[in-house]
Formats: sequence, structure tokens, C-alpha cells
Amino acid sequence: MKEIYLDNSSTTKVCREAADKAYQMMTECYGNPSSLHTLGFAAEREMQQAREQIARSMSVRPEEITFTSGGTEADNIAVFGAASQKRKQGNRIVTTAIEHPAVLEPVRRLEQEGFEVVYLQPDGEGHIRPEQIREAIDSRTILVSMMLVNNDVGTILPVEEAARAIARAKAPALLHVDAVQAYGKIPVRPQKLGADLVTVSAHKIHGPKGIGALYQAKTSHIPARTFGGGQEKNLRPGTESTPLIAAFGEAVRVLPELSAQREKIAALNRICRDGLGNIPGIVINSPEDALEYVLNFSTGSVRSETMLHFLASKGIYVSSGSACSKAKPSHVLAAMGLDSRRIDTAIRVSFSRENTEDDVRALLDALAEGMASLAKK
Amino acid sequence: MKEIYLDNSSTTKVCREAADKAYQMMTECYGNPSSLHTLGFAAEREMQQAREQIARSMSVRPEEITFTSGGTEADNIAVFGAASQKRKQGNRIVTTAIEHPAVLEPVRRLEQEGFEVVYLQPDGEGHIRPEQIREAIDSRTILVSMMLVNNDVGTILPVEEAARAIARAKAPALLHVDAVQAYGKIPVRPQKLGADLVTVSAHKIHGPKGIGALYQAKTSHIPARTFGGGQEKNLRPGTESTPLIAAFGEAVRVLPELSAQREKIAALNRICRDGLGNIPGIVINSPEDALEYVLNFSTGSVRSETMLHFLASKGIYVSSGSACSKAKPSHVLAAMGLDSRRIDTAIRVSFSRENTEDDVRALLDALAEGMASLAKK
Repeated sequence: MKEIYLDNSSTTKVCREAADKAYQMMTECYGNPSSLHTLGFAAEREMQQAREQIARSMSVRPEEITFTSGGTEADNIAVFGAASQKRKQGNRIVTTAIEHPAVLEPVRRLEQEGFEVVYLQPDGEGHIRPEQIREAIDSRTILVSMMLVNNDVGTILPVEEAARAIARAKAPALLHVDAVQAYGKIPVRPQKLGADLVTVSAHKIHGPKGIGALYQAKTSHIPARTFGGGQEKNLRPGTESTPLIAAFGEAVRVLPELSAQREKIAALNRICRDGLGNIPGIVINSPEDALEYVLNFSTGSVRSETMLHFLASKGIYVSSGSACSKAKPSHVLAAMGLDSRRIDTAIRVSFSRENTEDDVRALLDALAEGMASLAKK
Repeated sequence: MKEIYLDNSSTTKVCREAADKAYQMMTECYGNPSSLHTLGFAAEREMQQAREQIARSMSVRPEEITFTSGGTEADNIAVFGAASQKRKQGNRIVTTAIEHPAVLEPVRRLEQEGFEVVYLQPDGEGHIRPEQIREAIDSRTILVSMMLVNNDVGTILPVEEAARAIARAKAPALLHVDAVQAYGKIPVRPQKLGADLVTVSAHKIHGPKGIGALYQAKTSHIPARTFGGGQEKNLRPGTESTPLIAAFGEAVRVLPELSAQREKIAALNRICRDGLGNIPGIVINSPEDALEYVLNFSTGSVRSETMLHFLASKGIYVSSGSACSKAKPSHVLAAMGLDSRRIDTAIRVSFSRENTEDDVRALLDALAEGMASLAKK
């Protein structure tokens, strides 16, 4: 049975180049990058190359990139670090109700500690409007944390508006952008976005799980949350995972040109949307202007998990929303105000460069079959 | 030139079985273990197998093992978590002056926050004596953090004595053991040690860098330091690094029987000690009863880094102490009260199962040559 993987916003298959590099680092270039001998220097050099690769992809400097164990750790360092650094200058944090739990949960902790938190609510299509952002950010705001692309429905958030609003309000706020779902798909340029802190992750772009990076503008010196041997300029100590770091660099190196790739994905998305429109009962949850890599819809009649299993039995892998929420209903769809039937029957399809038109057609056929057979029960 | 790697306490070469498993996880079993479909379940199953493998090696339950990004993160979770959980029951923390920075630095932070910290000082051979431990632990002690094997000189610390002293003092203390240098070399059984929290790491036992584990007794519920999608029972959220976790499991699976392996290493250590005794000027810093995997000595005449480079030029890799301290002089040798000449000319040789008698002889020849040619300058 052919494997049709359409769950690329949960995680991706590691590309050959990245997997080969990780293997080489494990078995040949295995020195500790802190070791003061040839084997250590070789590992350090590979790590530096990866850092430069990732920095270049974001048009920033290598020394502004800190490797972490993934997006969650980078988000935690950013959110807690910004709050700790700025707490004397204000008490307000602005974020959205549709952030990833790796931002929402740290922010909730800060709320329990006494910070005033504004959770911007999306409209029915998952959009956050510029006016909302302008109204929420005041002169006492110390942190704005906003994702660039939402993982459940694919909406692109007006992050640049947050940067402008911070400037306009003369707020001391640092702007943190969780760009995990945007990176490798649309340009992520911290300076253009006006972001002080940006989170990216390898495993959403055909790199391995367990490695991410935090961009930190040279001007923002947030404190560490982990303490030890001083690696990563003390912001994230611990022996560096050189196999995953070098693999991350390779995954970035072999990324296709973003806009051409996006056009290809947009074409798949269009075929999928059109096909879904021909299946009675299906309602699409991702707005027309969402990033085309994500397409969320509801069958209205078959529970998400039931449909997931049916599709998996045919070798087609999709999700019911963020993998990180497991069986819990999507907090994003709930924040969008969708009714419980739409939430409980939601399916998220997420594309990668490995997908083809045939994959989409197979999905559409299987969906139609599933709805015909399962909805009756 | 043959590579003679004698820096195994810094890091090890990943064994074939572990590297192959990581590769398979990246390219075939690449699902997100939180995904509710076949690919996700397969990844979850591999992760569970690794957890069972590691639990079995420590005679504990799989659910008591939490995967972390390495020893440093596990140490930080343990030290801060224990302090946070117990802070209402007392104010004293007992540790040693020869811990790894991943314990010492968190403890220093807690000291700054107001905890009273006792740093047990080693004797001239790097030993911590049972009486010291008994004297330091009182009824207000809330955390004892003590390594099982020291990374710089190889001394084995009387951790069980700490457990007994906690019981005797009726202290509320949790006992944390950094077993990174002991694991895979001597038995690490938390229950026998009386430890509530134990740190282990993959990259010291021919597994990859970037993955470690924290054993936490079912009875001790320390709070998390990172917040997100709920993975690892909320203690350490973030998409699990399934390639590294499964590779860690493989590295543990193929560990040789510990006591037979230790005998083999002890024989290498004996040859090395005897040979060093024949080179005039060399003083051995590791006591006779140190774990045989580590052998620290001082040339007395050639600075560590100079000798490191000379040996590396012959394809022989050793260290001047912990890689995590980079060029800084060893805080362990300093705590042992060695004079600055001995500290500045120290060399640490650390063995693994891949080393042979020929490796040791090549090292001894090169050392003698290095001392003859370099000491004159």
C-alpha cells in the first residue's frame, strides 16, 4: 500500500540529505564541539556551518541563532525570558487565543504570577485583525507573542502590525514570533517583521525532531532558563546535539525556492478545495487567504478520529488538528466560534513538497467513500 | 593515521546499532508520536520500547523515565524541581564542590535566591567522605544532589550514605544523583542508591548527543520548567525526538555486561598507570579506587593544551578535563587542592569498550615523546 502522508504540519519525513548528515555526525564527526582537539573542532565547524545556513535563511547573523531542543523550548525561553527581562517596565502581555500551547501555557503561568494577559480572539475564519492588535498594545506592554502562521487552519497573522503598534505605543515590549509553521514556506525575516525573538523548528521542514532554534536580536538580552557548561553563550547550555544541528542545517540548505514551491502547493490546495466542494456536507474551515500548506475542513457527519482511522487504513495520513493536542478538540477552531459538530468532525490536511496531485485525488476518493460508509452508522 | 580516541568521558562515537536506528526513525518511522494514526502509533511504540529498555537497565518502571534533551536539562529539572517542591519544608541544599556545572550552576542560582547551600569539599584524591555527608544533612535539608562518578578524576561518591543520612536526619530532602558518568559502566539502580531523581545521558555510552533521561520515583512529583503540548506527562513537553530516543534505547540494548567490561577497562587502566609511572615527572591525580574508565594525571612540565595538540597531531584524542569547561582550569582539581602547576598540566584519559592495549601503548609513547620535546621549550 502506498503511503500518502498529508500530515506535514504535525511533522515531516526527514530528507535524505539531513538524515545522511546526522548519520555522518554520529559515526564519523562525533567529537564534542567543546573539546580542544581536532575531533572537537571538526564538530564545532559543522555546527557553525549549520548556524550560518539558518541565519542566512532568515537574513540575520549567525551569532543571533541559538539552538534549542525544538520549538517548545525556544518558545519557553522567549516568553519567560522576555517577561523576566522587562517585568520592571510594565505588566501587560499581548498574545492570541490561537497560539500553540508552547506559547499559551507559558503565558498562562505568567498570568498566574500576576501579569495581565490579553488573548486576542480570532474571527470565524481564524483571522486576527490589525485593529485588535493596535487596541491591545499599550505603553505598559512588555511582550507581544504572536505566531506567523497558525498550525490548525493556516491563517497568516499580521505580525508586522504588532511591531508597528509597539512603536506607536512607545511600549517596552519585545515581539516574539512563533514561526514554526511559516519557516521554510514563506520568508521569515525577523528584521522585516520587526521581531526581537523568533522560534523555528527543524522537524516541520524535513529535518529531524528534537532540534529548533531561537533567533534573538543582538539588542535583546533575555536571561537563560537552564544553567550549566556555558554552551550556546549560556542561553542554552548542555552538550550540543551536533547530529541534529548539522541535519537541521542540511534541511535548510536543500529547501526549494519558497515562492515556486508555494505555487506548487497552492495548486494542490486548489484541487483539494475544489474536490471537497463536490462532497456534500463538507465545510472548509481554512479561509481562502490561508497559507496553502494547511487545509482544514469538517465533514459534519463523521467524527475526526473515526475518519482518521478510516483514511489510515488506506495508507492516507491526515490529522484532526495539532498533533500536540492529541485527542483534545482544537482550541483554535473553538476560538473561531465554530459549533461543536464542526469541531468534532474536523480534518486537517497539510502538504509538503513530496505531495502530488495523485495524493490529493486519493484523499478525495477515500473521503467520499468514508463519508458514504461511515456517516450512515 | 589511525584515530585513537581516549576522550570518552567527553563524548563517545555512536555505535552502529544506535546510528542505524536513528536513521530508520528519521526516514521511515517518521510519524509524530502524538499523531492519532498508524505512523504516529509506530513512532510511539518505538519510543515506548526505548523507555522500557532504559527503565530495565536501572531496574525501575518505564513510567518513571522522562526523556530530556540531555544531562544538563535533566539536572536542571531535578535541582530546580526539587527545590520548588520542597521549599516550604526547609532551606538547606547539600551538594559537592566537584559536581558538573549542570548541577553547580542551578544550585548557585538557588543560593542567590536565598537557599543555604553546603558544598562538600573533596580531599586531595577527590573523595567525599561519609562523615562529611552525615554532618551536612540536617532536618531542614530539602535537596541533596551528588554525582555517582566524577567526570574529571573518576572517583565514586558514597551516594548511598547520603540516602541513609537523609533518613537518619528525618530530612524532607529529595536525593538527586547525576549518574551521567556512571551509567553504562557500573550499576545505576535508583532504589538501591536510595535516589529519588537520577540523571543519565546517551552520548557517554555510544548513543547520540541531544538525548538524556531523568528517572523520577513515582512518589516524587516535581514541577515542570517547560510548558506546552503535554508530552512526557507534562514534565518535559515538546515533540519527542524519536530518532534520538530510539537510538538511546539501542545504545542501552547493546551495552556489554557491565562487570566483564569493567574488568577489561581496568586492565587498560593498569597498563596505562604502569606506563605513566615510567615517565619521569608524571603524577597521577585519579586515586587507585577511582572508576577505571577515567585516568587523570599531570605531566608537571607541559601545559595541558599544548600536550593535547601534540597528541592530536598524532591522531590521539584526550582532554584537559571536562569538555564542558572548555579552556577553563578544572574546578575539580582545584577543589582537590592541587597546585596550579598540576592543574595547568593535567590530562584526562577516558576509555570506552572500543579501546585496546595498542591504543594505550601509542598514548604512552606519544606522551613520553611529547614531554621530551615540549618540556624543553
